[in-house]
Amino acid sequence: MKLALLVRTDLGMGRGKIAAQVAHAAVAAVLASGQADLAAWLADGQAKVVLRVADGEHLLDLARQAAASGLTVEVVRDAGRTQVAAGTATCCAIGPAGDERVDAVTGELPLL
Amino acid sequence: MKLALLVRTDLGMGRGKIAAQVAHAAVAAVLASGQADLAAWLADGQAKVVLRVADGEHLLDLARQAAASGLTVEVVRDAGRTQVAAGTATCCAIGPAGDERVDAVTGELPLL
Repeated sequence: MKLALLVRTDLGMGRGKIAAQVAHAAVAAVLASGQADLAAWLADGQAKVVLRVADGEHLLDLARQAAASGLTVEVVRDAGRTQVAAGTATCCAIGPAGDERVDAVTGELPLL
Repeated sequence: MKLALLVRTDLGMGRGKIAAQVAHAAVAAVLASGQADLAAWLADGQAKVVLRVADGEHLLDLARQAAASGLTVEVVRDAGRTQVAAGTATCCAIGPAGDERVDAVTGELPLL
């Protein structure tokens, strides 16, 4: 089981901003995921992997693919108070789910 | 309401590693927090603030202060597979709780 956290690298976000966006996505995924997936992921060590995507088009394309395959998907849109424009999709959580199902969507992405 | 996420800056962690540790801390805080605090924080926009501490001593000292004042505290210790030694305290979540209670412990810290 794993939770994939995808971050755009084209927005020039600093490390603190990135960490906050990834935390938003992870918490949203935990709150949105089904009890069975959540319990299995927690029991399995709650693995998280932080990956990078080149731009918003890539982020949203992968979010659509993940949703189409039945995975929990949470896109974070920034409130725009700092660094990026309001409503900008910055980050996306996919899962938690079995490694193979997550990797089928995100397996090509490099670590952030 | 806010959730403070404290990160050590003396470990040389990269931005992806920092993001993963902060996500661990945020999820742990959500799972550990009481229903009333969690509901109030979610309703209030689930604010997160990512702050920096100089070293492990400072991190654990603030964790102790927060626990002594009755705040939810979750210290993340790294499994040690990458970048830092196993068991190293990397990050700490304080809250979610009212801004004043969190600021009483973390108010002197700079943003990451």
